[in-house]
Amino acid sequence: MIEPNVTSKTSLNKRMQFAVIGGGVIGGGWVARFLLMGFDVNVFDTDPEARRKINEVLENARRSLPGLYEHILPQEGRLVFCSSIAEAVTNADWISESIPERLDIKQSAYAEIQSHCPEDSIIASSTSGFKPSELQQNASRPQQIIVAHPFNPVYLIPLVELVGNPQTTKHAAMVLSQLGMHPLRVRKEIDAHIADRLLEAVWREGLWLINDGIATTQEIDDAIRYGFGLRWAQMGMFETYRIAGGEAGMAHFIEQFGPALEWPWTKLMNVPDLTDELINKIASQSDQQSGQYSIRELERIRDDNLVAMMRALKVKDWGAGNLLNKVDQTLSVETELPAVPTGLGDAIRTARRVIPSSWVDYNGHMNDSHYGEVFSKASDVLLLGIGADQEYVARGYGYFTVDLQISYLSECLAGDVITVFTSITLADGKKLKLSHEMKNSQGDICATCSQFLLHVDLKSRKSCPPMDSVAAALADLN
Amino acid sequence: MIEPNVTSKTSLNKRMQFAVIGGGVIGGGWVARFLLMGFDVNVFDTDPEARRKINEVLENARRSLPGLYEHILPQEGRLVFCSSIAEAVTNADWISESIPERLDIKQSAYAEIQSHCPEDSIIASSTSGFKPSELQQNASRPQQIIVAHPFNPVYLIPLVELVGNPQTTKHAAMVLSQLGMHPLRVRKEIDAHIADRLLEAVWREGLWLINDGIATTQEIDDAIRYGFGLRWAQMGMFETYRIAGGEAGMAHFIEQFGPALEWPWTKLMNVPDLTDELINKIASQSDQQSGQYSIRELERIRDDNLVAMMRALKVKDWGAGNLLNKVDQTLSVETELPAVPTGLGDAIRTARRVIPSSWVDYNGHMNDSHYGEVFSKASDVLLLGIGADQEYVARGYGYFTVDLQISYLSECLAGDVITVFTSITLADGKKLKLSHEMKNSQGDICATCSQFLLHVDLKSRKSCPPMDSVAAALADLN
Repeated sequence: MIEPNVTSKTSLNKRMQFAVIGGGVIGGGWVARFLLMGFDVNVFDTDPEARRKINEVLENARRSLPGLYEHILPQEGRLVFCSSIAEAVTNADWISESIPERLDIKQSAYAEIQSHCPEDSIIASSTSGFKPSELQQNASRPQQIIVAHPFNPVYLIPLVELVGNPQTTKHAAMVLSQLGMHPLRVRKEIDAHIADRLLEAVWREGLWLINDGIATTQEIDDAIRYGFGLRWAQMGMFETYRIAGGEAGMAHFIEQFGPALEWPWTKLMNVPDLTDELINKIASQSDQQSGQYSIRELERIRDDNLVAMMRALKVKDWGAGNLLNKVDQTLSVETELPAVPTGLGDAIRTARRVIPSSWVDYNGHMNDSHYGEVFSKASDVLLLGIGADQEYVARGYGYFTVDLQISYLSECLAGDVITVFTSITLADGKKLKLSHEMKNSQGDICATCSQFLLHVDLKSRKSCPPMDSVAAALADLN
Repeated sequence: MIEPNVTSKTSLNKRMQFAVIGGGVIGGGWVARFLLMGFDVNVFDTDPEARRKINEVLENARRSLPGLYEHILPQEGRLVFCSSIAEAVTNADWISESIPERLDIKQSAYAEIQSHCPEDSIIASSTSGFKPSELQQNASRPQQIIVAHPFNPVYLIPLVELVGNPQTTKHAAMVLSQLGMHPLRVRKEIDAHIADRLLEAVWREGLWLINDGIATTQEIDDAIRYGFGLRWAQMGMFETYRIAGGEAGMAHFIEQFGPALEWPWTKLMNVPDLTDELINKIASQSDQQSGQYSIRELERIRDDNLVAMMRALKVKDWGAGNLLNKVDQTLSVETELPAVPTGLGDAIRTARRVIPSSWVDYNGHMNDSHYGEVFSKASDVLLLGIGADQEYVARGYGYFTVDLQISYLSECLAGDVITVFTSITLADGKKLKLSHEMKNSQGDICATCSQFLLHVDLKSRKSCPPMDSVAAALADLN
């Protein structure tokens, strides 16, 4: 009888012991998540390259996972490379198996694991291809073995599909939640679980498109990442379609969209009959999922999420974010930015923009930190105007802010149009002082900012006088 | 011969005239994008509710689209509701058709449109179901009619599939790019174009899962949005799998993953033969798409994008972002935050965190604006400590920052661990002054901050003395 006392063992304060059998990309990803969430991990892998491969994954995880949180993670756990399965699993509360997808190999690994591990530990296979009933064949304690199927990169993507004995997967779900993951307990075992069946469907359709010369890999990826990928990253498919159905609801949507299923759109044609029973099942599941929101509310949640994610991709200049940056370049030319300052104390317009919904905080107004963001971008525009542009930075020079003082005079709300006027108040060798004024569309000043910058050599990270072009532009002011 | 002189007509400075025939959710989305990007739009729709429906879409678009950009959009175009197709299209450079998906209705609409519109305008159908060759049957100028298939919400999602005459779609692509969209010119016409074929594949598989009781709509959506949806929003499918293939490349990945296609995973089984020719085709397309990056670089781009998008969802407390917030709550308890200040001038720890990769700017260090973000969050923690928590805000009271002064003493890099110590230096009625010190892991001070806040009544947005619990906590300090 497996009834691990997970509640007491899995508090982040307690030290569960994890074991990982098989340290490839997936096994290494598990290692990284366990360690970075503060747990000790024993690894066993016969590959002599395992240590190098795991360290590469760990390096990636260390530079990304901790930045997801506003608090520091617990101290990293201890990683031990073991020379046998026995050594790795003897004291393990959770044994993650990520060895090659061959049933016979997996089954012998479980025999070895079960002859050494505690009876109440969880043996969790990362398999995407096998069902628990297959994995458990001939096992001494079948209920101990479950599927915990993660997604690459395991240290960042939250989803884990759990399949197997309900009590074991219930406990497993509690452990995974505490690792910051989203455990999805699958109701019935089925080949490839849930997500990989969906992925397979798209993969097959993609292969046909390439095979038949309709699209390239790039074009298919673009169709995804500039299109429904953005919707799916936050709502998935059914909640997205619920919105498309409008106030008439999900049943209406299926009745509208349903017939399209019978069109000859694809070579993969077998579809379930859209009986009233199936339609009602979907509609009522959708009500349970999203019924607490009106369609109008869902639209706004969707739109705010899209704005926030697309703005995030802007910072990385990638995908949809790269597109937005291109438009910004055009708009900045249209609005005649960057302007060139004509003299000390002469205010020029350095920003004219709308407050995005993603900048609003729990007080219902633009969070104080985004005032700094607005002024920071305004400085960038002014620096462009005096020649401290990308090329100048590429040559190894730039300005660093040394002191900043912001006075907040009135609130800004999402959608408000603000304008920033900036003047250079001092340009003396490496010293540069700016004065910013942020105005709302009524012309009222919402905030002022004084900013002191130093010119720096980006190689030595030390201050130095500006170079020729910038020096000349500044000299013209005085 | 259709050769619209799009280059000169479609600069954002020039005023192209758009017409929209059919103003439902999709037509309304087009209207919104055209108008907000500064163009005039004529609308024709026989639905007496069209004006209300379009205004609802416009309202959503106005609160989201402008916030995507760091610059103000051009002045909104003029919206004219017309009483006939003739009136709407007579001077239109671009005619967007979004009427019901019935071929006979669409064909008669084109006859009416073509008898009144300029010969060099573009007639772009939003159809997801029909091919250009079907739309063009019996048309007086077939090449003028193309498919421009957008995705809901049209005002935010960039993808538009363009199908039809190469010259017309080339010009259409230029127009759409200037509207901030991503035109995808489809090489050969095919039922449902590209994206909807992929969507259909997932939809069918999803229906089976629900029909067979394997998963609910919520579970399928969760499998998407906590899993591959996050990957697809930034890289799509093939670039993601290229990474999974590792340095061995895409051909290796297909050889590994290929056999799985023949497993009985689904009821939809027809797959193309994985001939060497097909494998090489995919591998070389993938090289062309992503070959400029090593796998290691792609991993880091992927991870940085995921961190940026998931952090963006945190602000909205939605999907993967909601999961992260839950872990943050646990971590804040673990790290004994919020602490309660014991006296005036006593520094307590208000933050201990890692600098995320998404905070780094072109100078290679934490952008100056994020120092303000760190201090703003530190203030929130201190406010929790004196009882100004969510419940207090819900009761209608809180603190607004009035003045902030930051001194930048040293650079912070992605991955650096920083700690913030905060003391209350003044607590006098509605006035509250804080002093923050940010230290790096060597104990050096990276920045200091003085912050002046006022206690406010969130209903009147006016300052007022703090209420009982907070007042008592502050009185204890003095």
